[in-house]
Amino acid sequence: MATEATDTADDADAPDAYEALLDRRRRWSAVDSASGVLGWDQQVMMPEGGTPARSKQLSTLSSVTHEILTDEETGDLLDELADADLTDEQAAVVREIRREYERAAAVDAELVEEISEASTEALGAWEEARAEDDFEAFAPYLERNVELKREYAAQIDPDRDPYEVLFEDYEPCLPLSQAEEILTELREALVPVIDAIRESDADLAVDTFEGTFDTDEQEALSRDVLDLVDYDWDRGRLDVSSHPFTSGNQFDCRITTRFDESDPLGAVGSTVHEYGHAQYNLGLPEAEFGTPLGESRDLSVHESQSRLWENHVGRSRAFWEQLLPTFQERFPSTADATVQDAYEAFSQVYEDNLIRVEADELTYHMHIVVRFEIERDLIRGDLAVEDVPEVWNDKYEEYLGIRPETDAEGCLQDIHWSHANFGYFPTYSLGSVMAAQLFAAAEEEIDDLEGKIAAGEFEDLHAWLGEHVHQHGSRYETNELVKRATGEDFAADDFLAYVEAKYGDLYDLDLDL
Amino acid sequence: MATEATDTADDADAPDAYEALLDRRRRWSAVDSASGVLGWDQQVMMPEGGTPARSKQLSTLSSVTHEILTDEETGDLLDELADADLTDEQAAVVREIRREYERAAAVDAELVEEISEASTEALGAWEEARAEDDFEAFAPYLERNVELKREYAAQIDPDRDPYEVLFEDYEPCLPLSQAEEILTELREALVPVIDAIRESDADLAVDTFEGTFDTDEQEALSRDVLDLVDYDWDRGRLDVSSHPFTSGNQFDCRITTRFDESDPLGAVGSTVHEYGHAQYNLGLPEAEFGTPLGESRDLSVHESQSRLWENHVGRSRAFWEQLLPTFQERFPSTADATVQDAYEAFSQVYEDNLIRVEADELTYHMHIVVRFEIERDLIRGDLAVEDVPEVWNDKYEEYLGIRPETDAEGCLQDIHWSHANFGYFPTYSLGSVMAAQLFAAAEEEIDDLEGKIAAGEFEDLHAWLGEHVHQHGSRYETNELVKRATGEDFAADDFLAYVEAKYGDLYDLDLDL
Repeated sequence: MATEATDTADDADAPDAYEALLDRRRRWSAVDSASGVLGWDQQVMMPEGGTPARSKQLSTLSSVTHEILTDEETGDLLDELADADLTDEQAAVVREIRREYERAAAVDAELVEEISEASTEALGAWEEARAEDDFEAFAPYLERNVELKREYAAQIDPDRDPYEVLFEDYEPCLPLSQAEEILTELREALVPVIDAIRESDADLAVDTFEGTFDTDEQEALSRDVLDLVDYDWDRGRLDVSSHPFTSGNQFDCRITTRFDESDPLGAVGSTVHEYGHAQYNLGLPEAEFGTPLGESRDLSVHESQSRLWENHVGRSRAFWEQLLPTFQERFPSTADATVQDAYEAFSQVYEDNLIRVEADELTYHMHIVVRFEIERDLIRGDLAVEDVPEVWNDKYEEYLGIRPETDAEGCLQDIHWSHANFGYFPTYSLGSVMAAQLFAAAEEEIDDLEGKIAAGEFEDLHAWLGEHVHQHGSRYETNELVKRATGEDFAADDFLAYVEAKYGDLYDLDLDL
Repeated sequence: MATEATDTADDADAPDAYEALLDRRRRWSAVDSASGVLGWDQQVMMPEGGTPARSKQLSTLSSVTHEILTDEETGDLLDELADADLTDEQAAVVREIRREYERAAAVDAELVEEISEASTEALGAWEEARAEDDFEAFAPYLERNVELKREYAAQIDPDRDPYEVLFEDYEPCLPLSQAEEILTELREALVPVIDAIRESDADLAVDTFEGTFDTDEQEALSRDVLDLVDYDWDRGRLDVSSHPFTSGNQFDCRITTRFDESDPLGAVGSTVHEYGHAQYNLGLPEAEFGTPLGESRDLSVHESQSRLWENHVGRSRAFWEQLLPTFQERFPSTADATVQDAYEAFSQVYEDNLIRVEADELTYHMHIVVRFEIERDLIRGDLAVEDVPEVWNDKYEEYLGIRPETDAEGCLQDIHWSHANFGYFPTYSLGSVMAAQLFAAAEEEIDDLEGKIAAGEFEDLHAWLGEHVHQHGSRYETNELVKRATGEDFAADDFLAYVEAKYGDLYDLDLDL
């Protein structure tokens, strides 16, 4: 089908139907990215009273994109292009649009609307239930979200596992079976490691950054960190929001972070994490703005970029060789800390953390596995909503060796279920695993990457990520992207090797992963 | 046609076609107000590099609104409602939508696009021409904008004065002839007053606020001012932009201002001015969001609200009785100033100001009249573009007694022509005149309004403006709105009486306007 490879989605020789489809996609994307700006504004700038107008604006834009995408004309153009003579890039564009179209066209607009309304109600109920530690108050809303999302999955494909269908909303290019294998491998490998760490006598410098750290200085430090890694301020901003996030495209991609007086490392971590997301979007080809070739691959690839920067750069000893003097200038109380102290403090495995967003690199995955297993069983109908808290607590005891005393610290901790986002969680772990594989490949190809990080030189790493990940947009599906970037199939091997080396060393353990 | 008055655009008994039209209008309005958020962000928050994405987002949203509005279905619904049995409110809604529809449907989409592109190019050319003081470099772009806007007017109505047609884009509800009469009256009345002031021996405290004023303190003062006049921070924000503006609706209406170290009164004036605009939008009925009854009347009414607060409140002696102590706390260097000093400094007529946006209450209108007369003649074909600078300078000499030495300080000073906005300027003066008429009526109805302002009590003025202006949205056309609010036809009498009293007193002149 493909005749030749070109570099752009646009092509003078393309069939008219292709050009028409691309125009439609660009229009769709422009409205969708306008919604993104409104979403950023809502979380960062909007005064509280603005909600009713903002809801109406967002729901209208959402219905406009839905109409552009599911219009009969889109289907006709796709039919016309089914046997057309297309370049590889054009075929990739058509493949992506076809997937978007088929999924959107399969679901009744009324159901989409109903899910949106149910989620809005569930969100309010969840906030209250969490504050009151009252799972029963949230249960009917969760029940409703589960039912609606099962119905949604059935409209897309009544013959397939509904959780598999939902997972594809966040990661359409990776089979769920592959995701499950990786998550199971993580659980089996990491549970004993976490146990061994808890039993070890290693004496890490965990107290190095205890104290009170002024949040204005922390914000200045976040800007120092972003300067250090060459964030392009002409195409970005740093702001504060209650949940850190990244929003934007190759022309304008903004980061938010948050500050906690008692946890200066938390802000560094979340800033570097969001920076990784932003750097991906900023590396997408400008000429492809609005086409799938100018848009990021899905959530696990996106998370691989944030985790690569957060864990493999930000939590490395090398990075702290650059950052520590700046940190100490901002916070003279830490003047005596060494690079090794900072490294240990930032990489330590916590004894008793119950909260995913505050977790360390290792226990993090157990938080993911617990929720993944529970939501999968909920959606498959193998678990009743009322049983969630007990199952949750049992799994925490089994995988993490700790048992939550409240549901607020347990199954009510994360927002995703109230948004009816089932299938999202696995991408967090998949992204970390992919980050390790990509970073290992970059380390092999870049001469003395560690030394360069220690010297604050990030050009080679930027170039490697740009060449192997960012510039391709959605050109390749996930497995092909990873294979082309690393020469290997996507797997957990590099992640486990990284854990073995780093945590074996830190806790003086002889791990064999 | 009308059967009964109700309070809302929505009505269970309304014809189906009316409900369908209203749904369409709400959808249109939601997309349009989303564009407003993107516009605010562009001027206040967006990093510089974001322009290409933002342009594409805005042009796409603009074409979406154009399509919703000019869709055949809109015309069919309007036809169907032409003889329908409607309440007064419903008839007003249909009247407004019909006007929007007819204007939008009359103009080719290609021409709209062409004007948009020509304006973008002209804007760049204007910025450069102004920086270089080179009118000739801008002339071809102005020529093109004039031609395109003449064509635009001809598509709407080839048989009418094109300037009249263009004026209706900004002020559709007031005949141009009425606007011209008022502007002529202002010119004839104010030129001699300005002359007399320049010849007077009055010794105003013009130096009271000379010096350097920290801009952070100025920003804090702007917030003090907004607190004083009860700005609702739950539905608003204050930010900085190069040109102050207001953006938003009844749920979320934001103000921008700017600060100049040498001109603390400038920031107070522009903050109070924009506050007046915001207060109008915030006073629109919430239930009518997205219908013409929940949207402000056109530009002269909007400007009446900003000018009322800026001139009749902000520049009043009474207001400074409240504000001066706060001002002096922020700027101890002004500790010796009296309320009378502040009043005089803020109300003085400048000797030699050439720039509209820095003008005082009186000469301001001559800046407007000059540009109005010139753009009217340009559009009518009675003046060639190349002759603009000379005619401009001649008129300044005649009306203001000063002659610009450069075009940068002359006809190149304002952005509007590069935006192809011909017909906009008169609304600035009309708004000031209307402000005086509304304020006079409020003074008559509110017991001791001056005393209340001096005491920082604005509830009655808010209530009066809410009742007589804000809550009606576009329910009444401009003249009817003013007549209902004040009991009198819209005219310049109250404005001239205000000038006579205030400036006669300030400059010790026996004026007879």
